[in-house]
Amino acid sequence: LLLAYEKSGYDNEVQGRLPDLLPHLSAQRIRENGGDAVKILLYFTPHDTDEVNDIKKAWLQRLGDECKGADIPLFLEPISYDPNGMDEKGTEFAKLKPQIVIDSMREFSDPKYGVDILKVEFPVNMKFVEGYAEGETVYSRQDAIDYLKEAASVAGLPFIYLTAGVSNKTFTNSLELAAEAGTPYSGVLAGRATWLDGVKIYATGGNDAFREGLSTQGVENIQAINGRLDSAQPWFKRYGVNSAEELLQQGQPVAAG
Amino acid sequence: LLLAYEKSGYDNEVQGRLPDLLPHLSAQRIRENGGDAVKILLYFTPHDTDEVNDIKKAWLQRLGDECKGADIPLFLEPISYDPNGMDEKGTEFAKLKPQIVIDSMREFSDPKYGVDILKVEFPVNMKFVEGYAEGETVYSRQDAIDYLKEAASVAGLPFIYLTAGVSNKTFTNSLELAAEAGTPYSGVLAGRATWLDGVKIYATGGNDAFREGLSTQGVENIQAINGRLDSAQPWFKRYGVNSAEELLQQGQPVAAG
Repeated sequence: LLLAYEKSGYDNEVQGRLPDLLPHLSAQRIRENGGDAVKILLYFTPHDTDEVNDIKKAWLQRLGDECKGADIPLFLEPISYDPNGMDEKGTEFAKLKPQIVIDSMREFSDPKYGVDILKVEFPVNMKFVEGYAEGETVYSRQDAIDYLKEAASVAGLPFIYLTAGVSNKTFTNSLELAAEAGTPYSGVLAGRATWLDGVKIYATGGNDAFREGLSTQGVENIQAINGRLDSAQPWFKRYGVNSAEELLQQGQPVAAG
Repeated sequence: LLLAYEKSGYDNEVQGRLPDLLPHLSAQRIRENGGDAVKILLYFTPHDTDEVNDIKKAWLQRLGDECKGADIPLFLEPISYDPNGMDEKGTEFAKLKPQIVIDSMREFSDPKYGVDILKVEFPVNMKFVEGYAEGETVYSRQDAIDYLKEAASVAGLPFIYLTAGVSNKTFTNSLELAAEAGTPYSGVLAGRATWLDGVKIYATGGNDAFREGLSTQGVENIQAINGRLDSAQPWFKRYGVNSAEELLQQGQPVAAG
């Protein structure tokens, strides 16, 4: 069970989409509530001010050390944005996105942040990839593959892809590209890409239709994703071992006696 | 070197004197800046709302785990207050203060907060102690001694007394009482009780007079305090050992080999 520790959204009145924690939570309490790991979403772009980014980096150091002290893993979800309000669904941002995702993955792989797993965006906007785009393209298929490879190469940690609420079709297309790029990702965290259609079904058809939708289309969606995890690998493979136990034996001092 | 991690003061617009950290700092950065320990001031009283106190407790858990993760000691300075704006220098508050200090010392001795040293208020207001008071008294001398003993008895951690900016005379009187009570405190953190008079001297006599004042009255102030530390004992005595090294050997698993 992965529990969120941060407040959703951000304060539009303040520059930089600064993060904030839920005031009644701590890593200790997340553990007590049954959480197996802490999840933190952090809006991040190298294009924001040094002031803003320095605050975010200090904030993440705090969290990393807190999770270390509380002995609970930290999943970090860096989300790209534009500090000047550019439309993040448009072609202009699509051109900037790969480098933002790459820089974030490099930055937060630094051990000083204490992150265990990076939950990352796909570095390209699939809407604008040649072969998948319905209109304008921003990237050739090869561009997209190169960005995927570069992002994977700077990740010093196990990483998983998030869906960002795209459709199941778009997400499985993404995974097709990831397989072609051969990125060593450790799986996906897919929510809306599996059940989002269900919302519309529930609104028009009610509860029974909703259940029916989840057990047919919903299951198909999950199977479609599972069928595309060709190049995914267990997270501990990133550390060159074959099990979590093996890593534990290597990484921790064993009590004398 | 002890470095403060919190913003000074509090937001009067918000209930509860909620704490906030300096945005560019982390325990890691305090270490990098040469800090040997993190100091946190937290306004606390059991008389504030459950909502407020729950937030403060979660916040302190975070800090305790962060300092643990960053491997730096945490000094906590709980400061009593009244949530309804009662004058904290008056007799009414003086009646409430002992229990507030005692409750805070008990609460924050809980290992879940990860505090290493409690930096605490004297549990009575010396202005109102029989034998020291110039006007009205709130406590007999025996009352004061009993409160000192009770506060010490609930402290599960080494603790030191802060001066709260009282005069040197008042502070040495406090230490006289502490000695009589025989509390096992681990020393004092005295700032203003040593140099505060110097400010007036500087304002009227300038730099030379200020230096002269510090090297005469200032030194006498420090000597007066040092001369009163009768019952103080090294912090590691609280753990039943005779040195920090001994505690380290007991408390930490030794690497195999």
